[in-house]
Amino acid sequence: MSDFELHSRLAADSVLVVDGPLSQFRLMNDERYPWLLLVPRLAGVIEWIDLDGDQQDRLRTELNRACKALKSEPEVQKLNIGALGNIVPQLHFHVIGRHEGDPAWPAPVWGHGEAHRYAPEVLQERVQYWKDKLGYPPHP
Amino acid sequence: MSDFELHSRLAADSVLVVDGPLSQFRLMNDERYPWLLLVPRLAGVIEWIDLDGDQQDRLRTELNRACKALKSEPEVQKLNIGALGNIVPQLHFHVIGRHEGDPAWPAPVWGHGEAHRYAPEVLQERVQYWKDKLGYPPHP
Repeated sequence: MSDFELHSRLAADSVLVVDGPLSQFRLMNDERYPWLLLVPRLAGVIEWIDLDGDQQDRLRTELNRACKALKSEPEVQKLNIGALGNIVPQLHFHVIGRHEGDPAWPAPVWGHGEAHRYAPEVLQERVQYWKDKLGYPPHP
Repeated sequence: MSDFELHSRLAADSVLVVDGPLSQFRLMNDERYPWLLLVPRLAGVIEWIDLDGDQQDRLRTELNRACKALKSEPEVQKLNIGALGNIVPQLHFHVIGRHEGDPAWPAPVWGHGEAHRYAPEVLQERVQYWKDKLGYPPHP
Protein backbone atom coordinates (compact mmCIF):
# COMPACT_ATOMS: atom_id res chain seq x y z
CA MET A 1 0.00 0.00 0.00
CA SER A 2 3.03 2.22 0.28
CA ASP A 3 2.63 3.83 -3.11
CA PHE A 4 -0.95 4.94 -2.58
CA GLU A 5 -1.37 8.49 -3.72
CA LEU A 6 -4.63 10.40 -3.51
CA HIS A 7 -5.88 11.73 -6.83
CA SER A 8 -5.40 15.50 -7.01
CA ARG A 9 -9.08 16.13 -7.73
CA LEU A 10 -10.17 14.21 -4.62
CA ALA A 11 -7.53 16.04 -2.63
CA ALA A 12 -8.87 19.39 -3.85
CA ASP A 13 -12.55 18.63 -3.26
CA SER A 14 -12.46 16.85 0.09
CA VAL A 15 -10.60 16.67 3.39
CA LEU A 16 -9.40 13.74 5.43
CA VAL A 17 -11.60 12.81 8.37
CA VAL A 18 -9.95 9.61 9.53
CA ASP A 19 -8.23 6.49 8.26
CA GLY A 20 -10.33 3.36 8.50
CA PRO A 21 -8.85 -0.14 8.23
CA LEU A 22 -8.72 0.04 4.42
CA SER A 23 -9.80 3.49 3.34
CA GLN A 24 -9.48 7.17 3.94
CA PHE A 25 -12.78 8.59 5.15
CA ARG A 26 -13.02 12.05 3.63
CA LEU A 27 -15.58 14.82 3.87
CA MET A 28 -16.59 16.49 0.62
CA ASN A 29 -16.06 20.20 1.00
CA ASP A 30 -19.62 21.01 -0.01
CA GLU A 31 -21.95 22.24 2.70
CA ARG A 32 -25.04 21.53 0.59
CA TYR A 33 -25.01 17.85 1.59
CA PRO A 34 -23.56 15.62 4.31
CA TRP A 35 -21.25 13.74 1.95
CA LEU A 36 -18.51 11.26 2.80
CA LEU A 37 -15.98 9.63 0.50
CA LEU A 38 -14.24 6.33 1.07
CA VAL A 39 -10.95 5.97 -0.76
CA PRO A 40 -9.09 2.66 -0.31
CA ARG A 41 -5.43 3.29 0.39
CA LEU A 42 -4.34 1.09 -2.48
CA ALA A 43 -2.39 1.99 -5.58
CA GLY A 44 -3.82 1.36 -9.02
CA VAL A 45 -7.30 0.28 -7.94
CA ILE A 46 -10.06 1.54 -10.22
CA GLU A 47 -13.01 -0.80 -10.03
CA TRP A 48 -14.80 -2.40 -7.08
CA ILE A 49 -13.92 -5.77 -8.63
CA ASP A 50 -10.22 -4.85 -8.55
CA LEU A 51 -10.43 -5.46 -4.78
CA ASP A 52 -9.84 -8.98 -3.49
CA GLY A 53 -12.36 -10.65 -1.19
CA ASP A 54 -10.71 -9.47 2.00
CA GLN A 55 -10.49 -5.89 0.76
CA GLN A 56 -14.15 -5.98 -0.30
CA ASP A 57 -15.05 -7.21 3.18
CA ARG A 58 -13.22 -4.35 4.82
CA LEU A 59 -14.71 -1.79 2.47
CA ARG A 60 -18.17 -3.20 3.12
CA THR A 61 -17.65 -2.71 6.84
CA GLU A 62 -16.49 0.84 6.25
CA LEU A 63 -19.47 1.55 3.99
CA ASN A 64 -21.78 0.31 6.72
CA ARG A 65 -20.17 2.65 9.19
CA ALA A 66 -20.44 5.64 6.86
CA CYS A 67 -24.06 4.78 6.06
CA LYS A 68 -25.04 4.47 9.71
CA ALA A 69 -23.33 7.72 10.65
CA LEU A 70 -25.10 9.61 7.87
CA LYS A 71 -28.46 7.92 8.39
CA SER A 72 -28.53 9.02 12.01
CA GLU A 73 -28.43 12.69 11.00
CA PRO A 74 -31.86 14.19 11.71
CA GLU A 75 -32.35 15.67 8.24
CA VAL A 76 -31.25 12.63 6.26
CA GLN A 77 -34.13 10.73 4.66
CA LYS A 78 -32.27 8.66 2.09
CA LEU A 79 -28.74 7.48 1.49
CA ASN A 80 -27.11 7.56 -1.92
CA ILE A 81 -24.17 5.23 -2.53
CA GLY A 82 -22.16 5.55 -5.69
CA ALA A 83 -18.87 4.46 -7.23
CA LEU A 84 -18.60 6.12 -10.63
CA GLY A 85 -15.08 7.18 -11.45
CA ASN A 86 -15.78 8.61 -14.88
CA ILE A 87 -13.74 11.70 -14.07
CA VAL A 88 -11.49 10.43 -11.28
CA PRO A 89 -10.64 6.79 -12.01
CA GLN A 90 -9.12 6.07 -8.57
CA LEU A 91 -11.65 3.90 -6.73
CA HIS A 92 -13.78 5.94 -4.37
CA PHE A 93 -17.23 5.42 -2.93
CA HIS A 94 -19.56 8.31 -2.29
CA VAL A 95 -22.04 8.07 0.58
CA ILE A 96 -24.39 11.01 0.69
CA GLY A 97 -27.26 11.90 2.98
CA ARG A 98 -30.21 13.21 1.00
CA HIS A 99 -33.57 14.75 1.79
CA GLU A 100 -36.52 16.04 -0.12
CA GLY A 101 -35.83 19.65 -0.95
CA ASP A 102 -32.04 19.46 -0.95
CA PRO A 103 -30.55 21.36 -3.89
CA ALA A 104 -30.39 18.42 -6.29
CA TRP A 105 -33.32 16.33 -5.04
CA PRO A 106 -34.39 13.89 -6.46
CA ALA A 107 -31.55 13.96 -9.00
CA PRO A 108 -28.05 12.70 -8.18
CA VAL A 109 -25.72 15.27 -6.61
CA TRP A 110 -22.87 14.68 -9.04
CA GLY A 111 -22.52 17.50 -11.51
CA HIS A 112 -25.37 19.46 -9.94
CA GLY A 113 -24.22 23.06 -9.66
CA GLU A 114 -21.07 24.19 -7.93
CA ALA A 115 -19.89 23.05 -4.53
CA HIS A 116 -20.48 25.46 -1.68
CA ARG A 117 -17.29 25.36 0.32
CA TYR A 118 -17.48 25.34 4.10
CA ALA A 119 -16.00 28.32 5.88
CA PRO A 120 -12.57 27.18 7.18
CA GLU A 121 -13.58 27.11 10.85
CA VAL A 122 -16.81 25.27 10.06
CA LEU A 123 -14.91 22.74 7.97
CA GLN A 124 -12.59 22.04 10.85
CA GLU A 125 -15.54 21.59 13.19
CA ARG A 126 -17.29 19.27 10.71
CA VAL A 127 -14.21 17.09 10.31
CA GLN A 128 -14.03 16.65 14.06
CA TYR A 129 -17.76 15.96 14.16
CA TRP A 130 -17.56 13.15 11.61
CA LYS A 131 -14.41 11.76 13.15
CA ASP A 132 -16.17 11.44 16.50
CA LYS A 133 -19.28 10.04 14.88
CA LEU A 134 -17.46 7.43 12.79
CA GLY A 135 -15.67 6.32 15.92
CA TYR A 136 -12.50 4.98 14.35
CA PRO A 137 -9.40 5.11 16.44
CA PRO A 138 -6.41 6.60 14.64
CA HIS A 139 -5.13 4.12 12.06
CA PRO A 140 -1.61 4.02 10.66
CA MET B 1 -39.47 -13.19 1.16
CA SER B 2 -42.95 -14.18 0.12
CA ASP B 3 -44.36 -10.66 0.08
CA PHE B 4 -41.67 -9.18 -2.16
CA GLU B 5 -43.26 -7.03 -4.80
CA LEU B 6 -41.32 -5.22 -7.49
CA HIS B 7 -41.88 -1.46 -7.55
CA SER B 8 -44.03 -0.49 -10.53
CA ARG B 9 -41.44 1.95 -11.84
CA LEU B 10 -38.72 -0.71 -11.89
CA ALA B 11 -41.16 -3.11 -13.53
CA ALA B 12 -41.91 -0.55 -16.24
CA ASP B 13 -38.30 0.42 -16.96
CA SER B 14 -36.55 -2.96 -16.87
CA VAL B 15 -37.06 -6.65 -17.60
CA LEU B 16 -36.14 -9.74 -15.62
CA VAL B 17 -32.99 -11.49 -16.78
CA VAL B 18 -32.57 -14.11 -14.07
CA ASP B 19 -33.01 -14.65 -10.35
CA GLY B 20 -29.75 -14.77 -8.43
CA PRO B 21 -29.50 -16.16 -4.90
CA LEU B 22 -30.84 -12.95 -3.36
CA SER B 23 -31.82 -10.59 -6.14
CA GLN B 24 -33.55 -10.23 -9.43
CA PHE B 25 -31.06 -9.37 -12.15
CA ARG B 26 -32.86 -7.04 -14.50
CA LEU B 27 -31.89 -5.32 -17.73
CA MET B 28 -32.77 -1.65 -18.03
CA ASN B 29 -34.77 -1.18 -21.18
CA ASP B 30 -32.45 1.50 -22.51
CA GLU B 31 -30.24 0.59 -25.42
CA ARG B 32 -27.95 3.57 -24.83
CA TYR B 33 -26.02 1.70 -22.12
CA PRO B 34 -25.41 -1.87 -20.98
CA TRP B 35 -27.20 -1.44 -17.66
CA LEU B 36 -28.14 -4.06 -15.10
CA LEU B 37 -30.24 -3.71 -11.97
CA LEU B 38 -30.04 -5.89 -8.89
CA VAL B 39 -33.20 -5.91 -6.81
CA PRO B 40 -33.11 -8.03 -3.65
CA ARG B 41 -36.28 -10.12 -3.39
CA LEU B 42 -37.07 -8.77 0.06
CA ALA B 43 -40.04 -6.78 1.22
CA GLY B 44 -39.57 -3.38 2.83
CA VAL B 45 -35.86 -3.01 2.24
CA ILE B 46 -34.79 0.52 1.34
CA GLU B 47 -31.18 1.03 2.35
CA TRP B 48 -28.07 -1.12 1.91
CA ILE B 49 -27.77 -1.12 5.70
CA ASP B 50 -31.26 -2.60 5.99
CA LEU B 51 -29.68 -5.87 4.81
CA ASP B 52 -28.21 -8.22 7.41
CA GLY B 53 -24.66 -9.49 7.05
CA ASP B 54 -25.62 -12.63 5.16
CA GLN B 55 -27.78 -10.67 2.74
CA GLN B 56 -24.98 -8.16 2.18
CA ASP B 57 -22.63 -11.05 1.43
CA ARG B 58 -24.97 -12.47 -1.15
CA LEU B 59 -25.58 -9.10 -2.76
CA ARG B 60 -21.83 -8.48 -2.88
CA THR B 61 -21.36 -11.74 -4.76
CA GLU B 62 -24.11 -10.77 -7.16
CA LEU B 63 -22.61 -7.32 -7.67
CA ASN B 64 -19.28 -8.92 -8.49
CA ARG B 65 -20.94 -11.12 -11.07
CA ALA B 66 -22.78 -8.20 -12.69
CA CYS B 67 -19.58 -6.12 -12.70
CA LYS B 68 -17.53 -8.87 -14.31
CA ALA B 69 -20.15 -9.53 -16.96
CA LEU B 70 -20.34 -5.86 -17.88
CA LYS B 71 -16.60 -5.25 -17.69
CA SER B 72 -15.94 -8.00 -20.23
CA GLU B 73 -17.99 -6.17 -22.87
CA PRO B 74 -15.57 -4.82 -25.46
CA GLU B 75 -16.87 -1.25 -25.38
CA VAL B 76 -17.01 -0.89 -21.59
CA GLN B 77 -14.20 1.24 -20.14
CA LYS B 78 -15.62 2.01 -16.71
CA LEU B 79 -18.23 0.62 -14.38
CA ASN B 80 -20.66 2.78 -12.48
CA ILE B 81 -22.26 1.34 -9.36
CA GLY B 82 -25.06 3.20 -7.66
CA ALA B 83 -27.79 2.74 -5.09
CA LEU B 84 -29.77 5.97 -4.92
CA GLY B 85 -33.48 5.36 -4.44
CA ASN B 86 -34.56 8.99 -4.36
CA ILE B 87 -37.42 8.22 -6.71
CA VAL B 88 -37.91 4.48 -6.18
CA PRO B 89 -37.20 3.72 -2.53
CA GLN B 90 -37.12 -0.07 -2.96
CA LEU B 91 -33.46 -1.08 -2.66
CA HIS B 92 -31.89 -1.58 -6.06
CA PHE B 93 -28.31 -1.38 -7.28
CA HIS B 94 -27.46 -0.08 -10.70
CA VAL B 95 -24.41 -1.48 -12.48
CA ILE B 96 -23.73 0.31 -15.74
CA GLY B 97 -21.03 -0.10 -18.36
CA ARG B 98 -19.72 3.26 -19.49
CA HIS B 99 -17.36 4.53 -22.15
CA GLU B 100 -16.03 7.85 -23.32
CA GLY B 101 -18.49 9.21 -25.82
CA ASP B 102 -21.58 7.45 -24.52
CA PRO B 103 -24.57 9.80 -24.40
CA ALA B 104 -24.10 10.96 -20.81
CA TRP B 105 -20.31 10.64 -20.48
CA PRO B 106 -18.75 11.67 -18.10
CA ALA B 107 -21.94 12.56 -16.19
CA PRO B 108 -24.07 9.95 -14.43
CA VAL B 109 -26.71 8.27 -16.60
CA TRP B 110 -29.58 8.91 -14.19
CA GLY B 111 -31.89 11.59 -15.42
CA HIS B 112 -29.90 12.11 -18.59
CA GLY B 113 -32.41 12.34 -21.45
CA GLU B 114 -35.07 9.77 -22.22
CA ALA B 115 -34.51 6.02 -22.35
CA HIS B 116 -34.24 4.53 -25.81
CA ARG B 117 -36.27 1.37 -25.64
CA TYR B 118 -34.97 -1.76 -27.32
CA ALA B 119 -37.02 -3.14 -30.20
CA PRO B 120 -38.99 -6.09 -28.77
CA GLU B 121 -37.01 -8.77 -30.60
CA VAL B 122 -33.70 -7.14 -29.66
CA LEU B 123 -34.79 -6.92 -26.03
CA GLN B 124 -35.57 -10.63 -25.99
CA GLU B 125 -32.17 -11.39 -27.50
CA ARG B 126 -30.41 -9.12 -24.98
CA VAL B 127 -32.14 -10.78 -22.04
CA GLN B 128 -30.95 -14.18 -23.25
CA TYR B 129 -27.48 -12.77 -23.83
CA TRP B 130 -27.15 -11.47 -20.27
CA LYS B 131 -28.72 -14.57 -18.81
CA ASP B 132 -26.07 -16.71 -20.52
CA LYS B 133 -23.33 -14.32 -19.56
CA LEU B 134 -24.30 -14.07 -15.89
CA GLY B 135 -24.36 -17.85 -15.78
CA TYR B 136 -26.91 -18.31 -13.01
CA PRO B 137 -28.94 -21.50 -13.09
CA PRO B 138 -32.66 -20.93 -12.68
CA HIS B 139 -33.38 -19.99 -9.08
CA PRO B 140 -36.68 -20.51 -7.28
